[in-house]
Amino acid sequence: MALRTARNLAYCLNSIRNYSTNGPLVNVTVNEKSGFATVTLQNPPVNSMNLELLTEISHTLQQLEKNKCRGLILTSASNKVFSAGIDIFELHKPNSDRISQTWSFVQEIWIRLYGSAYPTVAVINGHATAGGCLLTLASEYRIMLNKFTIGLNETQVGLTPPTWLIDAMKNTIGGKQTEFALTAGTLFETEEALKIGLVDEVAQSKHDAIEKAEKFLNKFKRIPPHARSITKAKLRGANIQAV
Amino acid sequence: MALRTARNLAYCLNSIRNYSTNGPLVNVTVNEKSGFATVTLQNPPVNSMNLELLTEISHTLQQLEKNKCRGLILTSASNKVFSAGIDIFELHKPNSDRISQTWSFVQEIWIRLYGSAYPTVAVINGHATAGGCLLTLASEYRIMLNKFTIGLNETQVGLTPPTWLIDAMKNTIGGKQTEFALTAGTLFETEEALKIGLVDEVAQSKHDAIEKAEKFLNKFKRIPPHARSITKAKLRGANIQAV
Amino acid sequence: MALRTARNLAYCLNSIRNYSTNGPLVNVTVNEKSGFATVTLQNPPVNSMNLELLTEISHTLQQLEKNKCRGLILTSASNKVFSAGIDIFELHKPNSDRISQTWSFVQEIWIRLYGSAYPTVAVINGHATAGGCLLTLASEYRIMLNKFTIGLNETQVGLTPPTWLIDAMKNTIGGKQTEFALTAGTLFETEEALKIGLVDEVAQSKHDAIEKAEKFLNKFKRIPPHARSITKAKLRGANIQAV
Repeated sequence: MALRTARNLAYCLNSIRNYSTNGPLVNVTVNEKSGFATVTLQNPPVNSMNLELLTEISHTLQQLEKNKCRGLILTSASNKVFSAGIDIFELHKPNSDRISQTWSFVQEIWIRLYGSAYPTVAVINGHATAGGCLLTLASEYRIMLNKFTIGLNETQVGLTPPTWLIDAMKNTIGGKQTEFALTAGTLFETEEALKIGLVDEVAQSKHDAIEKAEKFLNKFKRIPPHARSITKAKLRGANIQAV
Repeated sequence: MALRTARNLAYCLNSIRNYSTNGPLVNVTVNEKSGFATVTLQNPPVNSMNLELLTEISHTLQQLEKNKCRGLILTSASNKVFSAGIDIFELHKPNSDRISQTWSFVQEIWIRLYGSAYPTVAVINGHATAGGCLLTLASEYRIMLNKFTIGLNETQVGLTPPTWLIDAMKNTIGGKQTEFALTAGTLFETEEALKIGLVDEVAQSKHDAIEKAEKFLNKFKRIPPHARSITKAKLRGANIQAV
Repeated sequence: MALRTARNLAYCLNSIRNYSTNGPLVNVTVNEKSGFATVTLQNPPVNSMNLELLTEISHTLQQLEKNKCRGLILTSASNKVFSAGIDIFELHKPNSDRISQTWSFVQEIWIRLYGSAYPTVAVINGHATAGGCLLTLASEYRIMLNKFTIGLNETQVGLTPPTWLIDAMKNTIGGKQTEFALTAGTLFETEEALKIGLVDEVAQSKHDAIEKAEKFLNKFKRIPPHARSITKAKLRGANIQAV
């Protein structure tokens, strides 16, 4: 996987046309004109984050860093589910190695995505629950299609989100809304999510969402990347230290 | 008092009918169907928090913890004043033991109520000033009747709220509104309080407010209490450590 | 300069009529009735914060403290620019003494203004960019005239704001809006700034703005200054410690 992704991303800054590969679980396409990478999760049916998908996401983010991409659009191949979160079977398996590996990857992905030097947008074209919502909170901007749900519903199944994720949600929607959302494990419909600020924009279709995502990323076209990434590190650093 | 309260609360989870006692300063009623306790402050005329009332509130919260109640509705027997806060005479008395005892109880009540495992609602059926507002900020949800005022007006009388209370207000209404409110010691009318988020809902009558409070508490009916209380501890823990 | 300012401010509490001097870079007028000082920056054409202006601002704030003024209105003599921020030539000069002196003054001004005992208002009667915006964020209340821009646009020129300034912006407009604003170095038009809470009120003219500023300061007329300043220190202290 690492090799395949590396090859894709070599095109990030210097390819002469759009490039696309269909990998097993994560597809990466780079627009050679803009330098924006579209990372599509494709682990049917619900992009369950098992160890294999987590490994591929982690390697993809590493390659994006190395290749100094100019922006990331994170989305799903499914038209129903963005991601249903961490595969519950990974956490229930008797093999404790797999459990600790799973959790290590979740933390590493958080640190890489939440702290990425390049700007990031989640195009939420399906339900984004638990770990799926985590991926969107790690992004800088969230664009969601209508009639889906989003939220950290951990308490509903007897679990509790990590403190660093709670703090990122507080940063996004404020303290009180975070308390309401997390103690009840609320899943918000698109319009409610927009209202409380859990998503930033609503799109009518995936195509519309991708256009809006590129518009967001284009805001940074003339910002010196070094200044942008240091500023982002100052904004999000404390939360990354806490992981 | 402790004994009486304990007896009341034994009914919290296993009573076969509603139970009610009229104690001297705090009345506790448990709805056997829902498991929700209604705690009514009854220290006329303004529910002044003297050492006696504070002692009763503290013991009540201890009993609620022990009896694993499913939810708390905190309200006033008066139809004009929720609570006017700490009895100023306790703080002005030459007896320094009483002053330090008073303040210890306020801190203890904050820790128990703000950090309670069970969900909490304040039904604000009268003015809630200073320590009265503190009790509502310690709750998870605030429902207020029209034409009353709420706020931490300490600076108006030459005092200043403790840092942990300031932080809880920031968490509720944000940094800027907290600065405006606390430097001026502002008392907000119901509609203003709703607008800045100091209260969450407005009710037309106490009956209406109690119904709304039960609706809020019912949100948690199917949430595993253990996951809920750990999540709440993660959300509010730092603020409790700081007391 | 110090002497001149000291002489002005001696009138702060006990002068019998309005007093005004025209100094080289900072003009101070004290309204003897209200006790409010109006501090006007007058370093044409854009109130560039070079070492000389910074020195005068710092001394002015010291004198205001000493003379226990009742309130500060900070504004510009220009009708186009509030302040364009730190003079970029100070930061590019080969003389490192001047660079470190400049930065020391910026920090000292932040500590004095952000942490001032007396209430403060910025009357933003022109563009307020970078260090200009910093002065307004250090104030307690922001009143802005139409058709100007405000913001921390450091990243646009390859720089990055200090963490304590980022935290003050978070406190003012919340975490998410701060991320959007700072990673893109956004300059907000008056109406947008009002919408996200970066300014608190819009005025139709400088005269209108001054009236609104006095109205804000008058809110504190009957608040014991000691309680107000301790409360403010509790609200803003952590951010000052971090400088």
